[in-house]
Amino acid sequence: MTRPAAAPLAPAQALDFFHDTRTATERLAKPLAPEDMMLQSMTDASPAKWHLAHTTWFFEEFILKERVPGYASPDDRFAFLFNSYYVQAGPRHARDKRGLVSRPTVEDVRAYRAHVDDAMGGLMSAGRDDADDIAALVELGCHHEMQHQELLVTDLLHGLSFNPLMPAYRDPEPVAVSSEQPLTFTSHDGGLVEIGHASGGFAYDCEGPRHRTYVAPFALADRPVTNREWIAFMEAGGYETAPLWLSDGWATAQAEGWDAPLYWWKQEDQWWSFTLRGPQPVNLDAPVVHVSYYEAEAYARWAGMRLPTEQEWELAGRDTPIRGNFLDDGALRPLPGGGMWGDVWEWTQSPFTPYPGFRPVEGAIGEYNGKFMVNQFVLRGGSCATPAAQMRPTYRTFFYPHQRWQMLGLRLAKDV
Amino acid sequence: MTRPAAAPLAPAQALDFFHDTRTATERLAKPLAPEDMMLQSMTDASPAKWHLAHTTWFFEEFILKERVPGYASPDDRFAFLFNSYYVQAGPRHARDKRGLVSRPTVEDVRAYRAHVDDAMGGLMSAGRDDADDIAALVELGCHHEMQHQELLVTDLLHGLSFNPLMPAYRDPEPVAVSSEQPLTFTSHDGGLVEIGHASGGFAYDCEGPRHRTYVAPFALADRPVTNREWIAFMEAGGYETAPLWLSDGWATAQAEGWDAPLYWWKQEDQWWSFTLRGPQPVNLDAPVVHVSYYEAEAYARWAGMRLPTEQEWELAGRDTPIRGNFLDDGALRPLPGGGMWGDVWEWTQSPFTPYPGFRPVEGAIGEYNGKFMVNQFVLRGGSCATPAAQMRPTYRTFFYPHQRWQMLGLRLAKDV
Amino acid sequence: MTRPAAAPLAPAQALDFFHDTRTATERLAKPLAPEDMMLQSMTDASPAKWHLAHTTWFFEEFILKERVPGYASPDDRFAFLFNSYYVQAGPRHARDKRGLVSRPTVEDVRAYRAHVDDAMGGLMSAGRDDADDIAALVELGCHHEMQHQELLVTDLLHGLSFNPLMPAYRDPEPVAVSSEQPLTFTSHDGGLVEIGHASGGFAYDCEGPRHRTYVAPFALADRPVTNREWIAFMEAGGYETAPLWLSDGWATAQAEGWDAPLYWWKQEDQWWSFTLRGPQPVNLDAPVVHVSYYEAEAYARWAGMRLPTEQEWELAGRDTPIRGNFLDDGALRPLPGGGMWGDVWEWTQSPFTPYPGFRPVEGAIGEYNGKFMVNQFVLRGGSCATPAAQMRPTYRTFFYPHQRWQMLGLRLAKDV
Amino acid sequence: MTRPAAAPLAPAQALDFFHDTRTATERLAKPLAPEDMMLQSMTDASPAKWHLAHTTWFFEEFILKERVPGYASPDDRFAFLFNSYYVQAGPRHARDKRGLVSRPTVEDVRAYRAHVDDAMGGLMSAGRDDADDIAALVELGCHHEMQHQELLVTDLLHGLSFNPLMPAYRDPEPVAVSSEQPLTFTSHDGGLVEIGHASGGFAYDCEGPRHRTYVAPFALADRPVTNREWIAFMEAGGYETAPLWLSDGWATAQAEGWDAPLYWWKQEDQWWSFTLRGPQPVNLDAPVVHVSYYEAEAYARWAGMRLPTEQEWELAGRDTPIRGNFLDDGALRPLPGGGMWGDVWEWTQSPFTPYPGFRPVEGAIGEYNGKFMVNQFVLRGGSCATPAAQMRPTYRTFFYPHQRWQMLGLRLAKDV
Repeated sequence: MTRPAAAPLAPAQALDFFHDTRTATERLAKPLAPEDMMLQSMTDASPAKWHLAHTTWFFEEFILKERVPGYASPDDRFAFLFNSYYVQAGPRHARDKRGLVSRPTVEDVRAYRAHVDDAMGGLMSAGRDDADDIAALVELGCHHEMQHQELLVTDLLHGLSFNPLMPAYRDPEPVAVSSEQPLTFTSHDGGLVEIGHASGGFAYDCEGPRHRTYVAPFALADRPVTNREWIAFMEAGGYETAPLWLSDGWATAQAEGWDAPLYWWKQEDQWWSFTLRGPQPVNLDAPVVHVSYYEAEAYARWAGMRLPTEQEWELAGRDTPIRGNFLDDGALRPLPGGGMWGDVWEWTQSPFTPYPGFRPVEGAIGEYNGKFMVNQFVLRGGSCATPAAQMRPTYRTFFYPHQRWQMLGLRLAKDV
Repeated sequence: MTRPAAAPLAPAQALDFFHDTRTATERLAKPLAPEDMMLQSMTDASPAKWHLAHTTWFFEEFILKERVPGYASPDDRFAFLFNSYYVQAGPRHARDKRGLVSRPTVEDVRAYRAHVDDAMGGLMSAGRDDADDIAALVELGCHHEMQHQELLVTDLLHGLSFNPLMPAYRDPEPVAVSSEQPLTFTSHDGGLVEIGHASGGFAYDCEGPRHRTYVAPFALADRPVTNREWIAFMEAGGYETAPLWLSDGWATAQAEGWDAPLYWWKQEDQWWSFTLRGPQPVNLDAPVVHVSYYEAEAYARWAGMRLPTEQEWELAGRDTPIRGNFLDDGALRPLPGGGMWGDVWEWTQSPFTPYPGFRPVEGAIGEYNGKFMVNQFVLRGGSCATPAAQMRPTYRTFFYPHQRWQMLGLRLAKDV
Repeated sequence: MTRPAAAPLAPAQALDFFHDTRTATERLAKPLAPEDMMLQSMTDASPAKWHLAHTTWFFEEFILKERVPGYASPDDRFAFLFNSYYVQAGPRHARDKRGLVSRPTVEDVRAYRAHVDDAMGGLMSAGRDDADDIAALVELGCHHEMQHQELLVTDLLHGLSFNPLMPAYRDPEPVAVSSEQPLTFTSHDGGLVEIGHASGGFAYDCEGPRHRTYVAPFALADRPVTNREWIAFMEAGGYETAPLWLSDGWATAQAEGWDAPLYWWKQEDQWWSFTLRGPQPVNLDAPVVHVSYYEAEAYARWAGMRLPTEQEWELAGRDTPIRGNFLDDGALRPLPGGGMWGDVWEWTQSPFTPYPGFRPVEGAIGEYNGKFMVNQFVLRGGSCATPAAQMRPTYRTFFYPHQRWQMLGLRLAKDV
Repeated sequence: MTRPAAAPLAPAQALDFFHDTRTATERLAKPLAPEDMMLQSMTDASPAKWHLAHTTWFFEEFILKERVPGYASPDDRFAFLFNSYYVQAGPRHARDKRGLVSRPTVEDVRAYRAHVDDAMGGLMSAGRDDADDIAALVELGCHHEMQHQELLVTDLLHGLSFNPLMPAYRDPEPVAVSSEQPLTFTSHDGGLVEIGHASGGFAYDCEGPRHRTYVAPFALADRPVTNREWIAFMEAGGYETAPLWLSDGWATAQAEGWDAPLYWWKQEDQWWSFTLRGPQPVNLDAPVVHVSYYEAEAYARWAGMRLPTEQEWELAGRDTPIRGNFLDDGALRPLPGGGMWGDVWEWTQSPFTPYPGFRPVEGAIGEYNGKFMVNQFVLRGGSCATPAAQMRPTYRTFFYPHQRWQMLGLRLAKDV
């Protein structure tokens, strides 16, 4: 995987990045039957087939239709079917009905991908005057597709989880044994600091503007909370103790009957979970995953600490080396002691709000992040299903506090 | 298609009937992609793949497991996945989650069918002492499978209707032109009559016992209500006139926004509907189809008449020759003037209740009809998607008064 | 209470009937605080204040406004507020929002009643030419008001049941002790019989036309099912045994968590229920009450019998003397051995459908019963909250099969 | 109304404050009939009777039961009925069922108030050693009761709004005419500032700890947005233009059919609204009220500006004199040019989150604010229904972004 450089991509780099990204998506879909690619188990999730088509539509809609005179789509109706939420790009198909679209078939969608890949290859190799503009849009489109790679995997896991046969996405393989690591903290001074993306290298609009903010001294744990620790919380009655919870969190947990992370169940005194490798015993020293903000917040209160703010996380994370991810083998790796990247997304206590001075860009592409800046919380880092090229200290992903189907975990913080 | 005889099937006949029925199901599924066979667009409907598997499970559960020592299913978990509602046959998968079962794939299900067909062929050819009992169960299983053939087609149509591309199940073919037929009636004397299945030939438990009942003189229309007549009802404000409707019907129509039969829309002053042959202009002199009981009942009131009782329908229908059906070409045929079979199921005003003296048979097979005898209405006849072997004067099918996705129409009656 | 005669009421009789009925309603409301009269605990139930006003509106709308030139309502907007469902009498207030109407206050409603009573008294004493027509409408209005007397009491009980303080409508008084009665049956010949209201005396439209029908020989229990018997059903696992239940009934019972009749709970090995006299131990030999059709039907199957048809009930009931009711003391009386009147309404297995030849009368009053002829079941008899003047062999009341808040019980039948 | 001093209240002051606050609540309830005091029109709102009882329970539960040996409540079950959400104070009655509690009646609740007032008077006059602790709890209880005074009024307005008769809480009186004020802004330097409650005088836990934060230079409007300006937004298509809205806001507006502030309707080209004085023409130059966060945020985007942060508001508000409120006459006063207090609560763009170092106090009283710190937004200032004693620069009230039934408006801000 080509890592985007610290400066805008040159056209030739963009072409490589495009091919790598497109190929990686197809590799992810390879083990799936057409039937698997139809699964839509809730409105928040989409079928794998839809992800394959939507990421393709993005290049077609924002690049090919704009810049290739006479460009013909294989089917003009795909724009309606595969637009996700871009109001300014026209009407779109109801999100909760994506699982009811059997045609185009998976084979048709693969032909659509090939058609667009060809047209993009031609465009990017044509030595055009607007090659730099195209390269910038391609870079955005590739980052967009990488986000959907992670969604494809997490949405699929959710879909498969409704099958009583508990099929695996991948065959189970031996997982490296992890060992218990003591919980240690690193202190940070804080102060009047600068936060957010400055310049050089790709970033989404919501990562800027870079701005001054005041951060009080704090300490951050050197590793995420583990399954072993989470089980201690459960055994201490964490899921039955209302005063540990936010009021909305408690109401949600009661209504949904939560008593463990998503996909967990107990079998003969052993906790199991449903994973991409099928049913697996819970790995005690791996980071806990598939917990909501509500659960993470209650855990932190129980532990006598708190979640970090996103500013605290960014200050700490920018000094920590980013390792490659483990998407290829789908395995949660053993804890390396100190890493902040590539295991789980980590809930912060920060609502997803605009940075001071934030203005969305004009047009449909400007709908990318700004309109979601309400009711969601920022997570930082990157999970085992996040491409390495997506990981950077300023990256802000965001989910609703009740959501659990993503690879979501937590790391503790405290005041100094 | 072998028509069941007027007496119980001999073992050899049963084997033919079994092969014919199984082959017909597969012929229905042939034009479908695996993706099409995953569609479940509402709880009432099931994926085509599930129909293929469930009809197979019926033979396995009630015949092979009971009578073949050492019979091994390809997967013991299929019994959980493919039981529909037989409480006494064990727990079963949630009905509204059938569309989330991507594995077994269509290919796996076809192998399951072949496995059961082989085992059934062996059992039925073995010259066993219980061959007559087996033949009777096979006959029931074939009738059960024919019911699911019709459901497969109607459920598929419902699933495809959510696709903005409006794909056709079959390629559109020329439809024979139908012409306007005057609305005439035939009078019947009624009196103290006998109703219900007596003996000789197959019937479901709910068709008996044959019993005496009193029917006042009545007249029954010689053909179903047509699309032309339905459009007149619509243009007269039928869907906006509360006093024409039952109270529950009006509430449903308002809540659902009904202003035409299911699958209809207007385009440049022409009514269209979504059919198995894709979008088609409404054929004015074909019987109206996809109307609920509520709509049918309101129409009859508007027309100054009423729906027939099921007893009236049976008295008239038993004197009318049964023609073969048109499932093979999927086309609604022109009105022949007087037929009561093979166009649409016809709503009667009779709630589905037990006949005097009705007792369900013991055991899981006894769950067939008895437990549905509340809140539903009887329809008589048979539609363009009903195998001819399913049509007989005593046959009672039943649906809820709000349901529309089956091939449901109506015929007028009046007092004399 | 003046019992309506076997012929139409003479004007003077109608005036007495009117005064008696209006006074009885006010007597029922007397123990209530204004706060009690605001309670609306579900859409099916209405506040006591609304019943007081709606029954008044009926006389105003269908008699005074039609026949008294220059009649002025105390408030023209009451017609909107207090119309229940008469579409042809104009728009009306949303049914589920009746509990949100604090003004007019109870005092205002009492003034409205007095105003209408005065006007009606004047009209009926004026010696008009249309006195017979008015007497007929008054008789209908009084029967309508008596229906609402029963609803006022049952709706109030439902409203009070949500109060953790469990307040009594009436102070608890000693209840006469009832004793266990053996379950005996009386046989009936059936045959080709006539059913329904003929002429002479008041009846609702749905009680006719009188018509011929065939009834097979049957036997009917001499008393309703008792609480003692119901507890035996519960202890035998009746509420946990799916094969005893209709499919819709089982689904409802599971969704609602039914494990006993409405208002029952167990306390230190004793069954209690919430009644008009507050919390009371269950009286073992009184008829079971507050059971749905689904429960009644499952009970009958468990007992190896069935519910009667409404025709069977009418044939038996017309030979049984009607006793006065016990509305004045609110107490369930000891079983007298053989009575069919004044304890509980008794579910029949007959859906509420039109009799052959039924035609609703024209105009708003014609909305009385016809439009409810779907999805409901007929009950026969009359409960402890039914005025004696409401009880007659042809009377058909009807409720949905899931409803329980009325005084609903059952009596067993069997084939002979 | 005694304004709380800048230091903790002395016991004698607390007694005066208690009497004033209790009397003010009863004055608010005086115009109401018992029927009005039963209204609960949604789960978010409570009946006036409940507010009267709950505020009383607070003193009983947290002071009398703790400190008066042998204290006897008029009814021990009131603790269950009138606890709002304090999990640690024991189980409580379902919030959405408060409107179904007719007993205790209003008269009973008034007796409960008198009982507790007597006991409190005795306790506070007894010259006890813990008089200072009691005074502090009394002060909290009075502030709590003042919050419920505002809720009583806004919940009542919501309840009355469902009555087609549109009854007024107060008789309409002449409203002073307001005149159009130009929209001007005042600039503020920001910088590294201190925010939050320090010491001296009453404050809720969530107003502290006082802490440093960095605020960039900004400008704040000198008055709230007016109805005249809001109508301009409506006429410019504000409610139909998706790109102006947050994604969740747009979904809510569509689902709820919003096209104007709550309680507004158009009648012969004039906008009207339902108010405490009944239906009134919209006063063009009064602040707009009853708009949600979603609407306020969309308005600000349309106006090319933004909502202030709560820190910006506090910086500006602490330099603005606080005027008395207008609760006594229920009238929205003419705009005075520059005031930030006593008209409407003003939405900020700040989610309600804990200040750095925030820790809830131990025990049930600690449930006051902390557990609501998710999914809500901070409003600052105070409305026409806010007692003056509630207004202070550090006060943070909070509501969900979809809520509109409170007196909620907005003021514009912009970057400098």
